[in-house]
Amino acid sequence: MNQDLRREREGASFNPELLTHVLDGSPENTRRRREIENLILNDPDFQHEDLNFLSRSQRYEVAVKKSASMVKKMREFGIADPEEIVWFKKIHLVNFVEPVNLNFSMFIPTLLNQGTTAQQEKWLLSCKGLEIIGTYAQTEMGHGTHLRGLETTATYDPETQEFILNSPTVTSIKWWPGGLGKTSNHAIVLAQLITKGKCYGLHAFIVPIREIGTHKPLPGITVGDIGPKFGYDEMDNGYLKMDNYRIPRENMLMKYAQVKPDGTYVKPVSNKLTYGTMVFVRSFLVGEAARSLSKACTIAIRYSAVRHQSELKPGEPEPQILDFQTQQYKLFPLLATAYAFQFVGAYMKETYHRINEDIGQGDLSELPELHALTAGLKAFTSWTTNAAIEACRMACGGHGYSHCSGLPNIYVNFTPTCTFEGENTVMMLQTARFLMKSYDQVHSGKLMCGMVSYLNDLPSQRIQPQQVAVWPTVVDIDSPDSLTEAYKLRAARLVEIAAKNLQNEVIHRESKEVAWNLTSIDLVRASEAHCHYVVVKLFSEKLLKIQDKSIHTVLKNLCLLYCLYGVSQKAGDFLQGGIMTESQITQVNQRIKELLTVIRPDAVALVDAFDFQDVTLGSVLGRYDGNVYENLFEWAKKSPLNKAEVHESYHKYLKPLQSKL
Amino acid sequence: MNQDLRREREGASFNPELLTHVLDGSPENTRRRREIENLILNDPDFQHEDLNFLSRSQRYEVAVKKSASMVKKMREFGIADPEEIVWFKKIHLVNFVEPVNLNFSMFIPTLLNQGTTAQQEKWLLSCKGLEIIGTYAQTEMGHGTHLRGLETTATYDPETQEFILNSPTVTSIKWWPGGLGKTSNHAIVLAQLITKGKCYGLHAFIVPIREIGTHKPLPGITVGDIGPKFGYDEMDNGYLKMDNYRIPRENMLMKYAQVKPDGTYVKPVSNKLTYGTMVFVRSFLVGEAARSLSKACTIAIRYSAVRHQSELKPGEPEPQILDFQTQQYKLFPLLATAYAFQFVGAYMKETYHRINEDIGQGDLSELPELHALTAGLKAFTSWTTNAAIEACRMACGGHGYSHCSGLPNIYVNFTPTCTFEGENTVMMLQTARFLMKSYDQVHSGKLMCGMVSYLNDLPSQRIQPQQVAVWPTVVDIDSPDSLTEAYKLRAARLVEIAAKNLQNEVIHRESKEVAWNLTSIDLVRASEAHCHYVVVKLFSEKLLKIQDKSIHTVLKNLCLLYCLYGVSQKAGDFLQGGIMTESQITQVNQRIKELLTVIRPDAVALVDAFDFQDVTLGSVLGRYDGNVYENLFEWAKKSPLNKAEVHESYHKYLKPLQSKL
Repeated sequence: MNQDLRREREGASFNPELLTHVLDGSPENTRRRREIENLILNDPDFQHEDLNFLSRSQRYEVAVKKSASMVKKMREFGIADPEEIVWFKKIHLVNFVEPVNLNFSMFIPTLLNQGTTAQQEKWLLSCKGLEIIGTYAQTEMGHGTHLRGLETTATYDPETQEFILNSPTVTSIKWWPGGLGKTSNHAIVLAQLITKGKCYGLHAFIVPIREIGTHKPLPGITVGDIGPKFGYDEMDNGYLKMDNYRIPRENMLMKYAQVKPDGTYVKPVSNKLTYGTMVFVRSFLVGEAARSLSKACTIAIRYSAVRHQSELKPGEPEPQILDFQTQQYKLFPLLATAYAFQFVGAYMKETYHRINEDIGQGDLSELPELHALTAGLKAFTSWTTNAAIEACRMACGGHGYSHCSGLPNIYVNFTPTCTFEGENTVMMLQTARFLMKSYDQVHSGKLMCGMVSYLNDLPSQRIQPQQVAVWPTVVDIDSPDSLTEAYKLRAARLVEIAAKNLQNEVIHRESKEVAWNLTSIDLVRASEAHCHYVVVKLFSEKLLKIQDKSIHTVLKNLCLLYCLYGVSQKAGDFLQGGIMTESQITQVNQRIKELLTVIRPDAVALVDAFDFQDVTLGSVLGRYDGNVYENLFEWAKKSPLNKAEVHESYHKYLKPLQSKL
Repeated sequence: MNQDLRREREGASFNPELLTHVLDGSPENTRRRREIENLILNDPDFQHEDLNFLSRSQRYEVAVKKSASMVKKMREFGIADPEEIVWFKKIHLVNFVEPVNLNFSMFIPTLLNQGTTAQQEKWLLSCKGLEIIGTYAQTEMGHGTHLRGLETTATYDPETQEFILNSPTVTSIKWWPGGLGKTSNHAIVLAQLITKGKCYGLHAFIVPIREIGTHKPLPGITVGDIGPKFGYDEMDNGYLKMDNYRIPRENMLMKYAQVKPDGTYVKPVSNKLTYGTMVFVRSFLVGEAARSLSKACTIAIRYSAVRHQSELKPGEPEPQILDFQTQQYKLFPLLATAYAFQFVGAYMKETYHRINEDIGQGDLSELPELHALTAGLKAFTSWTTNAAIEACRMACGGHGYSHCSGLPNIYVNFTPTCTFEGENTVMMLQTARFLMKSYDQVHSGKLMCGMVSYLNDLPSQRIQPQQVAVWPTVVDIDSPDSLTEAYKLRAARLVEIAAKNLQNEVIHRESKEVAWNLTSIDLVRASEAHCHYVVVKLFSEKLLKIQDKSIHTVLKNLCLLYCLYGVSQKAGDFLQGGIMTESQITQVNQRIKELLTVIRPDAVALVDAFDFQDVTLGSVLGRYDGNVYENLFEWAKKSPLNKAEVHESYHKYLKPLQSKL
């Protein structure tokens, strides 16, 4: 092992294994996760040439091959529990994208949620056996965010008891579904249902797109790959155009809404239940943000411990770049953020399961808050992570730009999280809608509970109105609880400002919608502050549950750094409204520097605790053994451009030009 | 033309052609630029398949082919003026990277700057005739920022009058030089010069690496491509390892330092002159930042005018997404930034030429400030642009993630600017060193001139010291001059804080270097504030030179938006020290919203004025005619994955798995 890393590990103040157990939830979880990961890491079927050296078509082929191996292994090892499937796939998900994923993550769940028992009996086994390879086709070329705007139609023909599917315009072509381009033979298609001359809005239909056996597109179907993207090279995101394409009536998913044989439409009892999948996916994405950021931090911090550069003291050897204050200031707040998001991700998972059970028992009361929270936190954590991965990459200097670092791939495969499954600004505005509603409810005398209960305490809600500028607090910058309080006050203040600006616009504008649009900057700001408060609160509360003293100490420092860094970045928000004073902000900046020094000796152990065994597969810079330079040279030699000593383009294009002028 | 774009253009308050003349410097410059651009756009030799559909080896081949065509055309059209070469290449530089570029941009200039007349006579014609294809090899695998740490050695052997070049360690292997991997046959190599048993530091040597004619690596030379990167796919960034490789004494560039035949070292008169190239490259990069950001804004704003989504008013058709306040808030401050950087880039070019003339006449007095300014502005503009390109990409939603948008390529080819030619944090600290030196000089009674003259007015420098909190100003948020003053005060305050913290650390620490490191967060913050002030100042001053009233009005609004957006983002800095009050910050946020509304009708014309004819080559979303969706479908059909109706991996991997369970 690299000497620097050995020394770092020996000098740590805590045992990273204990922290890994905290992150996994229990020692037993850690053991089981490693067992499953090792099945893959040690399996020759999963070894392949570095994807960075392959063309996109080759990458797609490797991905299909790995997808197929994974299905085989899951059958072989009897891995069926959804949680275990996630662990089994986790090793792929950060580095790797798989074309048959949507069959398991979207097609089957939608069939289970929205199909009748008869429909499930008809299709489920074929899906599990991969006779049906399914995907989920919702987004169209011209329509993403605004579902009601989707143009694809499914018109019922009572004569033949079929639906006739059409893509009436270029903009109505289905666009983006993963695995649609080349891999899938079925899609669940969202389309405007028309029966008896009337449109009943979006419904889901099971649509065969390729012939089973030959895999050729069926007549009436135009299907293909949408072309290269920033990342997701291995995924055949596809397009689908349907021309008078007929499917049987039974292919409409009819658990809720139904179309009778004669074309009579029967509407569903409630619309709320379709929330479920979205909420699940978004809460899962919070955990994905945590994993991607943790991985980026692992690479950048290990490399910063191994890389020596410049001079700190004249005449002495070049120091580890991790000893530069600016490098610490780049990386340690991100490390703290990674821990914060890990705990938020775990909280989201628990909460989802808890509320899902309630829903199963008919209690939908917490669904609106959960929906608002997942929307906002998905946006908040993905925006932060997106910028943070790039900060980690650039903190590795030139080598970060090379695919040897593994960081470009982490970035390009993470960044769509900001725009898919609900574009982030739209998500923030959904959270804002809940905040405004809550604000109004408090105003009309109702007490809020949950994460927005702070709105009950707004000065403007009190009988004796107080100046916003005299919040009754003195912030203790060494106390996570006190800082949580400060974040709460900031959120309350920004929610109130947004609400008042909105009220003001409503008075002056032609419609509520116009007023909403003209307040949307304030609304997004309020949502961000709310989410930031939630993250700070969950991190602080997590500290209370940590028993081991050494782990508690190191996590408390990370929590403080997370809180204080946020205060420093948003100092204006904390100064306005008098939450903190100018001299406190100065103290905050000073305290941040001290915390960097305190965290420095534990930095490597803190990323070791994330336990990314697989970093070695995707990153030369992030290897556990820190053997960077020799490996980098070996890696580079394999570059496809090095296959021939002299590239043929020299002879073709340059040699004919050469002359002494 | 797309109807939305037509309507936008008809509704603009000014003629974009006039603004294009302002950006180019004169109508004549615009004419000549277009003439040269059209030579390329209309030339069949420069047409090629979309690079996004090609493998890296194919992209490299296309790049070499284009490089060769370009050299031929430049010979044919007699394009020799460096400025015209830039225009001629500009069309490539944003979308395209060319392997022989370093021959013209680094090899020949270094030969001209550091070679003797005899050396120039010997090599120059061969370089221009491409018999010699040269590159510049400085960075090593283990050494970038810290030049003194470079390990490559050139040991003089008086017996044979040769230098013996060696790469003694893995970390000493030359790494990154563009065109080194496969294209070049010569490199200017930076190495530690050793003669008569003594090391004299870094010197430049002309090193043949491949045989002319066969292009095979010469004995003693190990050379190749360093492997795939985030971007720059077309560039064969390379490695070079030398083992007891001998070159004649005459291959050392000897205009300044010399080694006599007997091995006697003659040292140069001054070291300062080697600054020149660095300063030129960095000031050029400021212009590159402006161009890349302008291009990203062009794409995002045109697409936002064409894209319709969601609802603003119930029952009405989906609005252009450019009508959403949040979309305007994402894009218009970036548009304002693009204009700001365009003017800064032009200023840097002028200043460089002016000071270069002074240097030619022996006057080096302005060089230190120019050096500090280019370092800081290179960092400031590239960091801002880096984040801004991604913001533009994400503002295009899902389609921004596709290579059809052109934005991923703009980003990956721009982002190395943050870490090459001086890593940005290191650059900021160089600027800080100049600021600290200036601060000390003012303290010792000297008056500073140039961009740092504000330090003369620091309260602490006055005989009657004043509270920092009572700056004698009231900021007028509608006046660019008054806002420039506010930015000046902010810079002055942060420079002073950094200086005082540095002084304080110096007292308590073992060495100045340790103190410097422990203040470096403050130092970077001070440099950023200084650079921000310079940008605001240059933008404001540019307004004074605009005669056309309609152009003046629209640029003044952009300038105000740029200033106020910065205030809002850094509100804490303006509140602390009492530069602005809380109620002023509230007004600033309100005024920003108004400015968004004011700029809205001119947004498309403002990006048209950048006059990127070539956007159509690299971006489906950014086309001048706004024909997005049909083109997108045509583009996608050409995806390599669509070559076969059924991809072979289906038959190989998926079909064998398919079963009804």
